[in-house]
Amino acid sequence: MDTGDGAYIDAESLDFKEEARKESMDVAKVMIDDAIAEKLDVKKFSFTSKSTFRIADLGCSVGPNTFNVMQNIIDAVQHKCQSQGLTSRTPEFQVFFNDIPSNNFNTLFTTLPPERPYFAAGVPGSFHGRLFPESSLHFVHSFYALHFLSEVPKELLNKNSPAWNKGRISYTCAQDEVAHAYAAQFAEDMATFFDARAKELVVDGIMVLIMPAIPNVGQSSVHGLMSDCLGSSLMDMAKEGLISEAQVDLFNLPFYITSPKEMREIVEGNGCFRIEKMEIQNPRSGIDAPITGKSCVMQRRAGLEGMISKHFGAEIVDDLFYRFSKKIDEVSNLMESQFQEGTQLSIVLKRI
Amino acid sequence: MDTGDGAYIDAESLDFKEEARKESMDVAKVMIDDAIAEKLDVKKFSFTSKSTFRIADLGCSVGPNTFNVMQNIIDAVQHKCQSQGLTSRTPEFQVFFNDIPSNNFNTLFTTLPPERPYFAAGVPGSFHGRLFPESSLHFVHSFYALHFLSEVPKELLNKNSPAWNKGRISYTCAQDEVAHAYAAQFAEDMATFFDARAKELVVDGIMVLIMPAIPNVGQSSVHGLMSDCLGSSLMDMAKEGLISEAQVDLFNLPFYITSPKEMREIVEGNGCFRIEKMEIQNPRSGIDAPITGKSCVMQRRAGLEGMISKHFGAEIVDDLFYRFSKKIDEVSNLMESQFQEGTQLSIVLKRI
Repeated sequence: MDTGDGAYIDAESLDFKEEARKESMDVAKVMIDDAIAEKLDVKKFSFTSKSTFRIADLGCSVGPNTFNVMQNIIDAVQHKCQSQGLTSRTPEFQVFFNDIPSNNFNTLFTTLPPERPYFAAGVPGSFHGRLFPESSLHFVHSFYALHFLSEVPKELLNKNSPAWNKGRISYTCAQDEVAHAYAAQFAEDMATFFDARAKELVVDGIMVLIMPAIPNVGQSSVHGLMSDCLGSSLMDMAKEGLISEAQVDLFNLPFYITSPKEMREIVEGNGCFRIEKMEIQNPRSGIDAPITGKSCVMQRRAGLEGMISKHFGAEIVDDLFYRFSKKIDEVSNLMESQFQEGTQLSIVLKRI
Repeated sequence: MDTGDGAYIDAESLDFKEEARKESMDVAKVMIDDAIAEKLDVKKFSFTSKSTFRIADLGCSVGPNTFNVMQNIIDAVQHKCQSQGLTSRTPEFQVFFNDIPSNNFNTLFTTLPPERPYFAAGVPGSFHGRLFPESSLHFVHSFYALHFLSEVPKELLNKNSPAWNKGRISYTCAQDEVAHAYAAQFAEDMATFFDARAKELVVDGIMVLIMPAIPNVGQSSVHGLMSDCLGSSLMDMAKEGLISEAQVDLFNLPFYITSPKEMREIVEGNGCFRIEKMEIQNPRSGIDAPITGKSCVMQRRAGLEGMISKHFGAEIVDDLFYRFSKKIDEVSNLMESQFQEGTQLSIVLKRI
């Protein structure tokens, strides 16, 4: 997902971001392959020889992994068509790459694989609203994008509100009102997300959502630790006079990390999708390399740098991430154990 | 149509380009409105309440006129649906904005009208090949884009070929072999264009093509005069040592200006479309302002500057267009009379 200010993301960081994403994607690939093999019934779509199978990648960002995932999905669907005896009616594929309008679509378009088994299109806009015509999609995919809120809850910035988030940049370790404001914004965003997708997906269409998560709401987590390390680094810099505390008070990360229970309630509240599978996983399982401050910076800097530069100025970024790195090193053992509890939620849904 | 190097087009030039396009578009709008009112039979598409009417704008470039034309098409189709009694089944609209991958889609996407009656998508790629799934489009529009060749004919650059185009930048006033090479490239490009569109348009779908043209191939024309003025300005600069003649020898404009007769033969050769209407028009009819060198530069500089800068260097551009402007002033009376014979071809085609 683009952060709205891609200009600050340098190529080296992007490479590392892609590498970090790859670990999570390997876990997700198995989920997608299984979903298509077990849950997608191509016969239900009544394809003719002129039909199109339409796929959307919501919050696609840029980079090769976006293309790899689409290729995987198409390979799996083609295999499913064959196994269901639709060899003469295997559809053509159209892939819609969606992200907010400030995403670098120019880069996305000039890096599309020249030999691809699909017709490509870019769709600019927020997935917290309608993006596609009614009943026009057969498969929706979203990877690490749904935790982005449509906006930071307004009450966090209001000095007179009990949710005024002074001295912090997220809801972990904050008063309950802050966490409630975040949760309410997420619930509202997800309601509009599922309403829109319910319109856009054909009946029997499949949606696979991969997103950061925690086993239970309120629990200490890797995601919370990272936010805290970043927030306290900013506060240290404020105390040293490098930035102002007022600036920190007005900065809040636009992310909310959900739980399986919360997502289940949201999906059931919508009522248009059946949960075919929901799993919380550890994307680091099988990875020997330890968590270090440096590796965390490599993974997170690309996604955070734009918004931090915009709010605090580009000149603080190097210092900030150095401090962040040191703080992560101090809690890396705790993070290792938290990863084992699961940090990535995969959900397979069928439009009913 | 993007020239592949949008970075050199400044905002002021684009405004003038838009103004120039507007004159031609007013003429084209009448053609489109009539085509939809008289030739589009919405009932033939068997729309249900969940159907989508898909429109493609091929070679869309950027700028407000692109959006205005799409709005006009949708207004006309909605009106037609009502007049055909399809009020309860008026489809949703999806618009595909197509241009080559180097077009500035980021600008296109961030300038989309916020309130629009359609779902927008960008499609990067050459219209000299497939861009969309089979039978997925109901209306195709292209405005001043089809005269761009997929490439400059290779023999123009070969010193040993009779089509070696020494000292000129186009086929006007060149030996016959040069004109033949251009015509052959255009015929090849149009063959692939119509083959692709025949696949992509549904039966009874409509295609409206607006393009620069001359009444008869080989005739002296406004377009030829402009190429000659530009070419001789470059040769003047070469003689003064500001650029090298060898550079001019290797530069050829990638445009071909067709005629009604030639386009009719190409369409009939394809065999998948019926010509519902074909008219050559004077887009300047009703315009009182005289043609001047300055107005020509305003209209043409945006479209040419990128490729000229790339080949000769950005430092020659101001001088070149000053010279071009002076030469146009000398032939403006001749251009006025040539405009009256028609310089814009509008074709309405139906997929049969």
